[in-house]
Amino acid sequence: MTVRSRVLAAVAAVGALMTTTPTAHGDEGMWLFNAPPLAQLKAKYNFTPDAQWLEHVQKSSVRFNSGGSGSFVSKTGLVMTNHHVGADDLQKLSTNEKNYLRDGFHAKTAAEEIACKGLELNVLQSIKIVTDEVTAAVTPDMAPADAFKARQAKIGAIEKANADPAKGVRADVVTLFAGGQYHLYVSKKYTDIRLVFAPEKGIAFFGGDADNFEYPRYDLDVCFFRVYEGGQAVAPEHFLSWSEAGSKEGELIFVSGHPGRTTRQNTIAELEYQRDTGYPYLLTRLNRLEVLINSWVQRSESNRQKGEEELFGIQNSRKARIGGLAGLLDPALMGRKVADEERFRKFVTASAATADAAKAFDTIAAAEKLRATLVKDAGFYANGSAFNTAYFGMARTLLRAGDEKPKPAAERLPEFGDAKLQSLEFALFSDAPHYDDFETLKLADSLTMLAGHYGMADPLVTKVLAGKSPRDRAFALVSGTKVKDPAVRKKLYEGGKGAIDAANDPMIDLAKLVDAKSRELRKEFETKIDEPKRAAYAALAKARYQMDGDKTYPDATFTLRLSYGTVKGYQENGQAVPAFTDMAGLYERSKSQGNKDPFELPKRWEEKKAKLDLKTPFNFVSTADIIGGNSGSPVINAKGEVVGLIFDGNIQSLVLDFIYDATEARALSVDSRAIVEALRKVYDAGDLADELQAKK
Amino acid sequence: MTVRSRVLAAVAAVGALMTTTPTAHGDEGMWLFNAPPLAQLKAKYNFTPDAQWLEHVQKSSVRFNSGGSGSFVSKTGLVMTNHHVGADDLQKLSTNEKNYLRDGFHAKTAAEEIACKGLELNVLQSIKIVTDEVTAAVTPDMAPADAFKARQAKIGAIEKANADPAKGVRADVVTLFAGGQYHLYVSKKYTDIRLVFAPEKGIAFFGGDADNFEYPRYDLDVCFFRVYEGGQAVAPEHFLSWSEAGSKEGELIFVSGHPGRTTRQNTIAELEYQRDTGYPYLLTRLNRLEVLINSWVQRSESNRQKGEEELFGIQNSRKARIGGLAGLLDPALMGRKVADEERFRKFVTASAATADAAKAFDTIAAAEKLRATLVKDAGFYANGSAFNTAYFGMARTLLRAGDEKPKPAAERLPEFGDAKLQSLEFALFSDAPHYDDFETLKLADSLTMLAGHYGMADPLVTKVLAGKSPRDRAFALVSGTKVKDPAVRKKLYEGGKGAIDAANDPMIDLAKLVDAKSRELRKEFETKIDEPKRAAYAALAKARYQMDGDKTYPDATFTLRLSYGTVKGYQENGQAVPAFTDMAGLYERSKSQGNKDPFELPKRWEEKKAKLDLKTPFNFVSTADIIGGNSGSPVINAKGEVVGLIFDGNIQSLVLDFIYDATEARALSVDSRAIVEALRKVYDAGDLADELQAKK
Repeated sequence: MTVRSRVLAAVAAVGALMTTTPTAHGDEGMWLFNAPPLAQLKAKYNFTPDAQWLEHVQKSSVRFNSGGSGSFVSKTGLVMTNHHVGADDLQKLSTNEKNYLRDGFHAKTAAEEIACKGLELNVLQSIKIVTDEVTAAVTPDMAPADAFKARQAKIGAIEKANADPAKGVRADVVTLFAGGQYHLYVSKKYTDIRLVFAPEKGIAFFGGDADNFEYPRYDLDVCFFRVYEGGQAVAPEHFLSWSEAGSKEGELIFVSGHPGRTTRQNTIAELEYQRDTGYPYLLTRLNRLEVLINSWVQRSESNRQKGEEELFGIQNSRKARIGGLAGLLDPALMGRKVADEERFRKFVTASAATADAAKAFDTIAAAEKLRATLVKDAGFYANGSAFNTAYFGMARTLLRAGDEKPKPAAERLPEFGDAKLQSLEFALFSDAPHYDDFETLKLADSLTMLAGHYGMADPLVTKVLAGKSPRDRAFALVSGTKVKDPAVRKKLYEGGKGAIDAANDPMIDLAKLVDAKSRELRKEFETKIDEPKRAAYAALAKARYQMDGDKTYPDATFTLRLSYGTVKGYQENGQAVPAFTDMAGLYERSKSQGNKDPFELPKRWEEKKAKLDLKTPFNFVSTADIIGGNSGSPVINAKGEVVGLIFDGNIQSLVLDFIYDATEARALSVDSRAIVEALRKVYDAGDLADELQAKK
Repeated sequence: MTVRSRVLAAVAAVGALMTTTPTAHGDEGMWLFNAPPLAQLKAKYNFTPDAQWLEHVQKSSVRFNSGGSGSFVSKTGLVMTNHHVGADDLQKLSTNEKNYLRDGFHAKTAAEEIACKGLELNVLQSIKIVTDEVTAAVTPDMAPADAFKARQAKIGAIEKANADPAKGVRADVVTLFAGGQYHLYVSKKYTDIRLVFAPEKGIAFFGGDADNFEYPRYDLDVCFFRVYEGGQAVAPEHFLSWSEAGSKEGELIFVSGHPGRTTRQNTIAELEYQRDTGYPYLLTRLNRLEVLINSWVQRSESNRQKGEEELFGIQNSRKARIGGLAGLLDPALMGRKVADEERFRKFVTASAATADAAKAFDTIAAAEKLRATLVKDAGFYANGSAFNTAYFGMARTLLRAGDEKPKPAAERLPEFGDAKLQSLEFALFSDAPHYDDFETLKLADSLTMLAGHYGMADPLVTKVLAGKSPRDRAFALVSGTKVKDPAVRKKLYEGGKGAIDAANDPMIDLAKLVDAKSRELRKEFETKIDEPKRAAYAALAKARYQMDGDKTYPDATFTLRLSYGTVKGYQENGQAVPAFTDMAGLYERSKSQGNKDPFELPKRWEEKKAKLDLKTPFNFVSTADIIGGNSGSPVINAKGEVVGLIFDGNIQSLVLDFIYDATEARALSVDSRAIVEALRKVYDAGDLADELQAKK
């Protein structure tokens, strides 16, 4: 999964699932820009966005391909996102002398802006429905493997025909409604992205893992980049202007962003797989990584700088999964899903037109059963979790490039397809830093996990370890490989299979050793699980259309969506949680926790306290339907102005990405007023505030 | 296991394992006080402790039944141990206003000393060999279950005959050499233990989990209690005096303490089980608990106070197990074990007298195979890890008391045997505090783990959860149970089965629900794994005697042992690590880590720096053979004087509790000079220093 799960599912009202009427209620939904929820908005809010409004918001929205959302917020290419979306880049740009992740950054002039390595932003330009074209490539008599190949080939062809790499035009065929629809998304791609401003991590992630997914909160989780092209800051066709007044309780707001993944159409069989196998296993691995990296990071400041961003991502995922699992284990929530499936099964059984769907439930159940038996093998080998180092990923990409590139495009592994190749090369040739000690730590641990799972006597484990202990083997691999050098990677990649075979590199040799097994498991997963499920879910999605009409929206796919909702507090254990926090509350929370990490305020915030208007709203909650990937999404009022910045969901919003419960679930935002107040009074960044407020 | 693994295995020279000569070499060995290593000491150090020396050291040594070691160090009953051994009590004695664990404690007068709840100390008075008596209870024709019962009955009878609860005399039959020998240990038991002095946790555990098991170190890991009886401080028959000069490099030292558990006689089959199943599974659970409690503890100061001691124990175990597993995964170390077993098997095969031993290898291998299939079930139900709250333990003890107490002593579960009953009651009636929120957290997580392992559809899981989510079920159980009240526990216990059955308590009902399964799994483990292994290891131990004579010592059993060694630095990655650190080094380490947690110095240490002699030795290393349970053991010179205090082992000593490698493995001690310097100059505790140095 390329999407980081930063922000978790908040959702909207679905009491209806227990009845026989359809699904999207209240503020539920992650809507497509080419199928916006006009009826719902009209009915509940008496608001109808016109085509210009939609185009403006769409083209102001930015996707961070590293996993997150953002928006153009000035006429000179300023992009706003979360600090935690920019954190990878902040860390990569840091040096022993300058720790931008910890201490923040502010470029006072264009010359001081720093170019990020390997960061790609996309801005969606157009959507075209290509469902008929894609589905026509598959005939009913095809075996699943052939169907998969045929579909991939068609998708590759459409993408190639519509992409224009030279002009930075990217084309992606997006699978929606589990294969029920295919849409062609053409985007403008930017790769010259420069860092403009970031606050200290201590205020961006105030409360740390302890307060993560909690509310009330006090996080200035914001970060600004500027987009360049041809050496010039871009003047975007569309950008969002800054609200003068900010939002208020009860106000309608919109969120435009890239929710990563939801599983709201999943059958009970799949949910049970997740509950009983998938989530528990994932949590086991996350726990292991968290303990490993946390204890290493604490040994020295240098370790901290190398590992803290990865640790932060792991802790975040862990907390999210714990929340998700808690939902799956809640008989009340699962009961509602069961009731919904019963309603759906009744509909499917009653209609001859949905014969495919009737079989789909069994197909999915069988696939989930197989998945439970394959998930660990596939995790270790196909996903490479047994070889947890960036160098292994590079080695494998090189090895496979040698094998895949000579093939016709349609027969390659999807990531080597023509449309994707440029992004793959961009990532492979990135000279973002890695650290041998950190890579050794992770590789040694993952080899230990491999040995613990299969036992030391397993023949492939024996070959992988080559007579060494996991620690010694990891040290030998990491210190011995030359793929850590971007120039070597480039040379080998360009030299093709001959050069790669002759490289005599221990990490490439390891990738080679396990590649047959890795590919076999991947293929088994794709052909026996993914493809049958894709077909089954497509049949179900079709049947659901027949049942519920167009009142539905597809599961999230890390593509641009529009959500809406109300700024609104909630009740928790009988106590009212207000919609807004303010700057005074920040200082109180820090004091009550002894001003100690993770509640320690950055020095500047102590020093500038007297200058601040402590009544400035800091964070607020709303009922907008968001999930991981929405991090950095602008919160917009009906006039299309920025009033906030999505950065998290509360713990109740973790109840699941699979079902909604809006009673307490809320999306968390940084208030736009806090951003401007902090820029002006804490960071002496009046120029930036002026740019946002179009005062210069 | 009742022994906490605080300090890990250091060991001694075993190059000999590769040859055909026997085992104990160099400074190896955790020797029995009734079979001390006189020949080795004479040969290597030209030193022969006489009977008086041995008796003096033995009766000055103290066992902390909470898991650790200590020693009498003054004529008025002062006992020295580690801060981390006393930490449970420091936490229990703390209040919202006074955090003794974090801030330290010093009773300036006897009246200020605080009584600890539930703490029991033992001082070994005599050892008697009862092997013949115990083994005579078992005849060769008995089935394993009957043999087990007969042996337990005999042991119970011996313990009962020799104990005198009214006079605080405790009797324990100790199983040594895996059942090759049984010794009766008669101890004086003390339960009125009062806290006298503890430093801040920040200096006791300076470097925290980050520096744990590392060297060089700078930890003042010391804590003093005073033992009372009949309202008076005891005047112990024996106590250790304080060395004037302290130790120096190359000096012979002794360690008298209670190593918890070693597995040096384990067969390759058992080591492979640990490597491939036992350790990986244990680490999975430790990782899970560490993440759970660490994230909870960080939410508030109140959480920290409730959970940090448990967290510390978990992190410590985790690091120890990672080190142990690394050793098991090291082909070089395992190769030496394999070679040793080959030598042993050859000996066994060659002699008709060891026919039992020849079969023993297969018996153990079969038992380990079964263990791998049962370990998780037994962990969840028999050990109760599915119900991770102190309240469940109380409920189960009450439930079983109702069933067991009416039985004849010989037929009861061992913990309800006459000799053990008093300790069980003491623990059950303790009013040490527990916290509902913390108990709910742990119980909810363990129920989640249970559901994740068996699946929600499992019939017993369904009954355990009773239609609720793990969170809701845990909340209902913890908030609903009355066993949290010591008075209720006492009343139910005294009321017997009738009262317990009528209690209508949700936690007792839960214990009842799973008790059949729990007992069945426990019985299966005991009769099909533990008992056959016990017999097999007894045969092996006997055969090893025949092979190696009395040059061996038994595996550790949390009973008093004598180790010896040399104060000695070592080489690491080609660099010399000196034997001693000093106070100047403490301040340097703190500064280089930004004086931040866990390297933040307590305020007093900053303020008093100028007064200190910074050349005072702080910690030192030696080759003494120690392991978890030795924490708090005195380090004694040849004159029987205190020169240090064992508190840890270095990371190299983690290579295993199953094989020795003295090249780098070292025991870590607090230097006695640092203790006195700190007491006098940092803590204004000259009175206590005077008491130690017998100046008052």
